[in-house]
Amino acid sequence: MDIETSVVQMAKDARKAANTIASISTQAKNKALLEMADTLVKKADYLIAENAKDLDCARQAKLSPAMIDRLTLKEATIRGIAKGLEEVAALPDPVGKVTSMWRRPNGLLVGRMRIPLGVIGIIYESRPNVTADAAALCLKSGNAVILRGGSEAINSNIAISQILRDSLISAGIPEAAIQLIPFTDRLAVNKMLELEEYIDLIIPRGGEELIRAVVKQSRIPVIKHYKGVCHVFVDENADMDMAVSICINAKVQRPGVCNAMETLLVHKNIAGKFLPAIAAAYRGAGVTLKGCKKTKEILPDVEDAREEDWGWEYLDLILSVRVVDSIDEAIEHIEKYGSLHTEAIVTRDYRNAQHFLRDVNSSTVLVNASTRFSDGFELGLGAEIGISTTKLHAFGPMGVEELTTTKFIIYGDGQIRT
Amino acid sequence: MDIETSVVQMAKDARKAANTIASISTQAKNKALLEMADTLVKKADYLIAENAKDLDCARQAKLSPAMIDRLTLKEATIRGIAKGLEEVAALPDPVGKVTSMWRRPNGLLVGRMRIPLGVIGIIYESRPNVTADAAALCLKSGNAVILRGGSEAINSNIAISQILRDSLISAGIPEAAIQLIPFTDRLAVNKMLELEEYIDLIIPRGGEELIRAVVKQSRIPVIKHYKGVCHVFVDENADMDMAVSICINAKVQRPGVCNAMETLLVHKNIAGKFLPAIAAAYRGAGVTLKGCKKTKEILPDVEDAREEDWGWEYLDLILSVRVVDSIDEAIEHIEKYGSLHTEAIVTRDYRNAQHFLRDVNSSTVLVNASTRFSDGFELGLGAEIGISTTKLHAFGPMGVEELTTTKFIIYGDGQIRT
Repeated sequence: MDIETSVVQMAKDARKAANTIASISTQAKNKALLEMADTLVKKADYLIAENAKDLDCARQAKLSPAMIDRLTLKEATIRGIAKGLEEVAALPDPVGKVTSMWRRPNGLLVGRMRIPLGVIGIIYESRPNVTADAAALCLKSGNAVILRGGSEAINSNIAISQILRDSLISAGIPEAAIQLIPFTDRLAVNKMLELEEYIDLIIPRGGEELIRAVVKQSRIPVIKHYKGVCHVFVDENADMDMAVSICINAKVQRPGVCNAMETLLVHKNIAGKFLPAIAAAYRGAGVTLKGCKKTKEILPDVEDAREEDWGWEYLDLILSVRVVDSIDEAIEHIEKYGSLHTEAIVTRDYRNAQHFLRDVNSSTVLVNASTRFSDGFELGLGAEIGISTTKLHAFGPMGVEELTTTKFIIYGDGQIRT
Repeated sequence: MDIETSVVQMAKDARKAANTIASISTQAKNKALLEMADTLVKKADYLIAENAKDLDCARQAKLSPAMIDRLTLKEATIRGIAKGLEEVAALPDPVGKVTSMWRRPNGLLVGRMRIPLGVIGIIYESRPNVTADAAALCLKSGNAVILRGGSEAINSNIAISQILRDSLISAGIPEAAIQLIPFTDRLAVNKMLELEEYIDLIIPRGGEELIRAVVKQSRIPVIKHYKGVCHVFVDENADMDMAVSICINAKVQRPGVCNAMETLLVHKNIAGKFLPAIAAAYRGAGVTLKGCKKTKEILPDVEDAREEDWGWEYLDLILSVRVVDSIDEAIEHIEKYGSLHTEAIVTRDYRNAQHFLRDVNSSTVLVNASTRFSDGFELGLGAEIGISTTKLHAFGPMGVEELTTTKFIIYGDGQIRT
């Protein structure tokens, strides 16, 4: 079978499996998840050996140390993956939950019941742990999944997915509920993105370029975020210590992720006091600052921020800084340069806190807390399949509930329409 | 300005207006809606005169009487449109509603707040009332709308939309919140479907061909339903009178709409008694039956149902009938030939009722009630912008809440991530 025919067959098998697992018991799903966790740990040596093949290729291809680090499976990584699967097993099953129910004047009882989306395609890069994480979340929410990992992790991904599928079989669940596309050819993805008849949703996870290519090609709905250009606005009457602590955390704790701060906005009335304090703290943490004109009047040594710095996702220890005249100027800046991801205000003013929460239309808006909390686990969703900046279906961090939709269920006693 | 440049400018203006109306007061929106209702009635003569131009063209183009009927604006139609706008004004405003809120172990208070989607593009055919209905629902939910009606209604649509826009201005709302594309050229739609940067959602309403073309072209998410092939399953122990009443209503009350029944499934143990009764009733109502082999053993006079009859949307007084061995065979038939729209079971059996509700994954599933209730008004959503058979964001009839999404709002007191 050629690549395209194989991909179509996988999609058909997934659709069929989806019909079965939509109504499978929570017990069966959890049994499979726990067995997956168990087997991954037991077969750690095998996984590490398969991963070594990918690492060899990666070194030959001279991938960056950061990429090789993300690609590496160690025993601790594998135990971490297994623990993740156990946590997914412990989550409440979203399927079948009736989210609301009301009675109509004619006596009809109308409710909404959560059901799986069907078949989900996940397109991702490098990290082999996504193979297990994403498959587990899709299974728990009753969806079949087609995984398409990066070519650099192909041996690791095949090994992991085979263990997952064996556990499905021993729990009596159709194997096709979890499938990995074994082809690294671009043709496979292109074909997959055409199959709207069999696949209900595509979630791309990776760099902006990958995601834009997927959106352009896909006939299937895509939930994605292109990038995270997150802002913290320090209001004129912010608590100074809190503002420093939040700004350090938002920028420094893990600069390479999408919910790290990329631009700091400071009210002009606090800038003279706050900027020197935060600049000293950032200096100690190795952060390079790029400032607007007014910032440079206070901190003459920082680099100039150019127009393209606003809206830039550094993913590094670099921060652009702008002094603004008012909260409204801060909100306008975010509207113009932001990415609808995550923004925070640090303030003691009640009205400004509510104004910011209400009028900033990013997927996560915080008062007096670090942008780093924009994360499915941290917000209490129990897990995270990704973050959406698409204002449809799911906006912000997505857990298992976001992998379901609702249907209307109606209890009547003979009603007809007149 | 050429057509494409004009459409881009409209989309940019809509995006700008969307930012403003996302946070406009409920009062301002309602004031505009009520004034629109008032002015439409006052300017009925003008609307009827503009509509007459469209009717002249329609007659020259020899459109069908049904199409001309849908196109016609009479005083009563205009009063009906105005009443619809008043009803939308009376609906609760979904924007800003906090749908849930919970506390995290670290003290963060995490909630979800409804916000508008942004800019919505509606592509529709013939009926000029959609211009006002859709614009009103988008305005109430804080969205800007770009309307693209059919060329056959262009004069009527321009006249209606101008009245709507005048009311926006006098309520202090940016006029660009409601825009109608004045070009009937196909180029305008094609351009619109590329503008993912400015438009958040496309809702096509019309025939399957129109909708498929939109899905294929669009880079913007599309919520749609291709067709409604709705089933009623009469279970072996159904109440006979109720089954006849529901089957007549589902097929006959309004056969040309998407929630009318197209296929009747009958349990073999009741077929001998039920089929002659319903056939007599259908004969009286002018319904032509097409039956499977087993149906024809009981009703020898009906036409043969061919394979293509299953899954066919007649939108007419024609019905395909199949005798099945069990509820599971009925569910399998629906899975194979259905359109994920609306299905009903008539039964007195508790277990079968629950089984059908749980395992039929159509957007609306009913027990002992007519499929004709699959409608935003009838289900109590207060209004309807359309029906979705896309299992994402909205599945089934969509009201104003379905024109919003939620963002996370987080109240902290200095939390940082460790």
